[in-house]
Amino acid sequence: MTYCVGLSVEEGLVLLSDTRTNAGLDNISTFSKMHAVEVPGERALALMTAGNLAVTQTVWNLLQQGVWMEGAQLRLTDVHDMFAAAQLVGAAVREVNRRDGAALAQQGLAFDCSFLLGGQIAGGAPRLFLIYSAGNFIEATEDTPFLQIGEHKYGKPILDRVLTPRTSLVEGVALTLISMDSTIRSNLSVGLPLDLTVIRRDGLRLAVRRRITEEDGYYRSIRDGWSEALREAYMRLPRPDFV
Amino acid sequence: MTYCVGLSVEEGLVLLSDTRTNAGLDNISTFSKMHAVEVPGERALALMTAGNLAVTQTVWNLLQQGVWMEGAQLRLTDVHDMFAAAQLVGAAVREVNRRDGAALAQQGLAFDCSFLLGGQIAGGAPRLFLIYSAGNFIEATEDTPFLQIGEHKYGKPILDRVLTPRTSLVEGVALTLISMDSTIRSNLSVGLPLDLTVIRRDGLRLAVRRRITEEDGYYRSIRDGWSEALREAYMRLPRPDFV
Repeated sequence: MTYCVGLSVEEGLVLLSDTRTNAGLDNISTFSKMHAVEVPGERALALMTAGNLAVTQTVWNLLQQGVWMEGAQLRLTDVHDMFAAAQLVGAAVREVNRRDGAALAQQGLAFDCSFLLGGQIAGGAPRLFLIYSAGNFIEATEDTPFLQIGEHKYGKPILDRVLTPRTSLVEGVALTLISMDSTIRSNLSVGLPLDLTVIRRDGLRLAVRRRITEEDGYYRSIRDGWSEALREAYMRLPRPDFV
Repeated sequence: MTYCVGLSVEEGLVLLSDTRTNAGLDNISTFSKMHAVEVPGERALALMTAGNLAVTQTVWNLLQQGVWMEGAQLRLTDVHDMFAAAQLVGAAVREVNRRDGAALAQQGLAFDCSFLLGGQIAGGAPRLFLIYSAGNFIEATEDTPFLQIGEHKYGKPILDRVLTPRTSLVEGVALTLISMDSTIRSNLSVGLPLDLTVIRRDGLRLAVRRRITEEDGYYRSIRDGWSEALREAYMRLPRPDFV
C-alpha cells in the first residue's frame, strides 16, 4: 500500500509520501513515491504516486521523456500552467494504459494507479490535483484543502478536524506528519522513510525537500509527542455519569 | 455501512454500535444493530451485527428460535459458557448461509455479515468474540483488547494508542464514543443514534443499556470536547525548524 497526502493552504503546498511498496506481505521494498520538477524562479512541482509500481514508474518515465498532448511532445517543464500539468500527467496515464492495460488485464490485474500533483508555475497560483487511473482529475479547494491517495482512512480524522486554508506551512508539516504517523501505526504496508516537499506560494522553487528517516529528531518528537498529547487530551475529557 | 466496537477490559465489556443502514446512498434507514440477552444473576450478553441486514436479522431471529447444535436446539439462554455462545452464533450464520447463500450468489451478492458477541455466563469470565460470515471466530485478548466490525479504520488509531486491559469501564465508554465520533465524521454511512451496552465483570446483568441520540448531553460533550482537545494537543506539539 501507500499513503500520500497533500495540503493546499494560503501559504502554499505541503506534500508528504511514504516509501513502502509490497508485492504481498512477504515482499516489502523501499521506493520513493515523490518526484520533483524545479526550474527556480519559474516553476516548482512535485508528483506523488500510489498503486502498481510498474505503472507509476512508467508514467514518471514517460513524463520525463515527453508525452504527446495537443500535437506536441511535452514535459512538466514545458507546460504553461498547473491545469495543463495535470492534463499532461493524465495523458501519460492514458498512454501507459494503452501500452500495458490489456496485458495487465490478461493477468487479472487492474490498471491501478493514482497521483497527487502539487505545484506552482509563474503567472498562476499554487494548485493541488488528484489524478485518477482514467487520467481524469479533481482539485483541492478552500472547502477541502487536502487530498490523499492510498491508505487514506487512518490519517483523515485529524485533517478533517484541524486543517483550514489558514493553516500555516509550518503547522501543515506537523499535521501531515501526524496524519502519516497514524497511518503507519495501523497499516504495516505504509512505512518509513518519508519524503516531504514544501512549496511556498510565489517562491517558485522547492522550499523544503527532505527525506525523513526513523532517526529524524523532528519526526520522533511528533510521533512520541502526539501519542502523549492524545492520551492527555483523552484524560481531560469528561467521564459518563451513567456507568 | 456500520461501525461496531467492543472493548474487553479487566472491569468488563463495553459495546457500542451505530444504527445506520443503507441500500445505496439514496436509501438510508435506522436499525438497531445491538441485541441483548439477559438473565440477571446468570448471564448477560450482547450481539452486534454488520453486513447485509437481511442476513443479520435472520441470524438474530434464528438465535431466538433456537439453532441446532450438537443434537439440540439451543438459544443464547441455553448455552453453558461464552465459547458455546460464539459457536451457536456461528452455527446460526452457517444455517442462514445454507438457506439464503445460493440465492444471494445468483443475484451477484456476497453472503456478507459479521458479529461482535460480548458477555459473561456464570462460572466463566467476560469474553468478547468476532464471528465471521463463515461462522468461525476470534477472541479479544490482553494484547488486543478490542474488536471492531464494519468501518473500522477511522476509529482505530485512538484505540491503538490509548486502550489497555487496565482501562476502566467509565474510560472505555469515553474511548468508544471518541472512536465512533471519528468514524461518523468521516463516513456518512455510519450515523446516530448509537446503542451502548456495558457489562461489568461478575455483575451478570447489563450494567448499562442506553440509546444515545444527537441530544445526549454526554455524547455532545465528547464530540465537541474531543475536537477542541485534539486542536489543543496539536497546537502544543513542536513545529519543524526546517520549513
